[in-house]
Amino acid sequence: MSQTCDVTTAMTDWLRSGLAEVQNRLVMELLSDLPAVNDLVAHAERYRGKMLRPMLVLISGLAARQEAGGGELDLRPAEATHHVLAAVVEVVHLATLVHDDVLDEAEVRRGGATLNHLRGNEAAVILGDYLISHAYHLCSSLDRPVVSRQIARTTNTVCEGELLQLSNRNNWGLDEPTYFEIIRRKTASLCGTSCLLGAELGGASAETARALHDYGQCLGLAFQIVDDLLDLVGQERVVGKSLGRDLEKGKLTLPVIHLLGSEQAGRSRQQVIGRLQRIGRLMAEHEEFPQEAGHPLATELAELRNRLVQSGSLGYAQEVAQRLVEQAKRCLSRVPGPVRGFMAETAQGVLTRSF
Amino acid sequence: MSQTCDVTTAMTDWLRSGLAEVQNRLVMELLSDLPAVNDLVAHAERYRGKMLRPMLVLISGLAARQEAGGGELDLRPAEATHHVLAAVVEVVHLATLVHDDVLDEAEVRRGGATLNHLRGNEAAVILGDYLISHAYHLCSSLDRPVVSRQIARTTNTVCEGELLQLSNRNNWGLDEPTYFEIIRRKTASLCGTSCLLGAELGGASAETARALHDYGQCLGLAFQIVDDLLDLVGQERVVGKSLGRDLEKGKLTLPVIHLLGSEQAGRSRQQVIGRLQRIGRLMAEHEEFPQEAGHPLATELAELRNRLVQSGSLGYAQEVAQRLVEQAKRCLSRVPGPVRGFMAETAQGVLTRSF
Repeated sequence: MSQTCDVTTAMTDWLRSGLAEVQNRLVMELLSDLPAVNDLVAHAERYRGKMLRPMLVLISGLAARQEAGGGELDLRPAEATHHVLAAVVEVVHLATLVHDDVLDEAEVRRGGATLNHLRGNEAAVILGDYLISHAYHLCSSLDRPVVSRQIARTTNTVCEGELLQLSNRNNWGLDEPTYFEIIRRKTASLCGTSCLLGAELGGASAETARALHDYGQCLGLAFQIVDDLLDLVGQERVVGKSLGRDLEKGKLTLPVIHLLGSEQAGRSRQQVIGRLQRIGRLMAEHEEFPQEAGHPLATELAELRNRLVQSGSLGYAQEVAQRLVEQAKRCLSRVPGPVRGFMAETAQGVLTRSF
Repeated sequence: MSQTCDVTTAMTDWLRSGLAEVQNRLVMELLSDLPAVNDLVAHAERYRGKMLRPMLVLISGLAARQEAGGGELDLRPAEATHHVLAAVVEVVHLATLVHDDVLDEAEVRRGGATLNHLRGNEAAVILGDYLISHAYHLCSSLDRPVVSRQIARTTNTVCEGELLQLSNRNNWGLDEPTYFEIIRRKTASLCGTSCLLGAELGGASAETARALHDYGQCLGLAFQIVDDLLDLVGQERVVGKSLGRDLEKGKLTLPVIHLLGSEQAGRSRQQVIGRLQRIGRLMAEHEEFPQEAGHPLATELAELRNRLVQSGSLGYAQEVAQRLVEQAKRCLSRVPGPVRGFMAETAQGVLTRSF
């Protein structure tokens, strides 16, 4: 029992020092000879949260190393390639956050003002480009074209997911398969690739690499569903970013799709659509997500939330996320003991938003 | 004489069929399984002009091949690597055009409505990301990490140029060295890299590759100065894109910097700044660049143009562009006969905007 505790502590320490090294690589890569550039980059670095994607790279690398070592847990520092790759996926992620905030016209991210809000969309568009460019630049330093190609293939997929989402704005007939196609591409693909490449660079067998890819993908899907739930029913101060943007931008997420599908009668379905349209319009007119009772927008939102609870749509989305986490855990059967436990906990943490 | 003619025709044909192959590679790379994505990409492809950058890749490759072949002109089709690289630099360029139009709020490009104007900034931001992602994806297929790294280094530089430009908006004290630093990074770097990599992949000596890089860089600087002149004194119908955006966005270009520098007396300099500020405000209020006399904006613009002519500032900028073209030509001393002539003409064409 105490030994398990020791192992978990040792793994947590290993991960913490690994992430610190990733952070160093990231900062060094983004450094410019132009002070104006460094100033903007410093702002984007504040967006960084708990570094879920770098963690997936490092921990998948650890799983691969354990497999290669015949099941022995080896907590020597990760190879430089893993730190570099982890920095690459984090910079890709930062770039998508910066551009997403432009698309969503978001004003708050990680509890602070977004770059587009403070410095204008122009700075945010170019900064996102700067970040993505440096991600590829850093990646090409690995001298492994296969890795560069996989990263670029993943960013292709992420962009397709965003474009698919955009082309389905205000599509009240959006179905679940299309919703899952969107979130698989825009969110889950980078999580899957983080695990896949972390495992492959660690020398994992093809089967293990594939299983870890699937783990990352399921975890990423669950992550996005929880993110969408928070946008709908979270509190801005707690979540730390602008909420209600999905409703404002006519993006249908899982609970809303479920609600629309569960309204059998055409008239009641039409009422929900009317409410969604009114909320979208009101959201566009308001800077903040009003919480006070009596406000027309607050009333509409309260009504929508009531319907989402009554129809079981919120519960349904939560269940789907939970099922995806279980599915992620089942992908870990090839991973030996302590690392498996750690990865299972990571997946579980997505539901309570520890990440 | 007639032989020279034949050689020029043969080279033109060689280039035309090479660019057609580049075009094929580009279209194949950008193809998605999602119709919504292909629809947007088709719009961006209409932005394509005379493919200056792919031309630089191919022609530098030809120069290298001629050098490697002991001076013999060899008009067999270019290697696949050159076609791929040429497609990469064109897709990078397309991505910058799409994002530039967002930054400039431009409504017209190549005689047609811009994507941001037709589909909104959101589609344009993501489409630019999609293009840049595919550029790296295609580049990594070359299996040459050195090339990927050089391309990514160049896009880093392009973004820095854009950020430096942004941080100098409405900076009435902008000096020439900073202006040149901006255009070297945002425009000339990609032209220089196109020549450098085209030469290197063609087996050029290090000296020739370096000389061709410098040729491309000088040509790129001249290109941007001419572009800036057209924004100031061109006609929208002739140039085919929204004009006056530099003035609207407070971007100082070479003629204006020269004018501000030539106004010795503080008061007359202040008058020019006041006029630039009024023009910027008026431009922001108008969708189009008004050409009719009597309009307050037209009057301000006519006054500014008069001052630019009287002070010799337009002539100065034209001369600088001309000198850069001469400098570009001097970089060609190591390139044998027919190819040198062709490359010299290409540089000259930048001044009359044949490209």
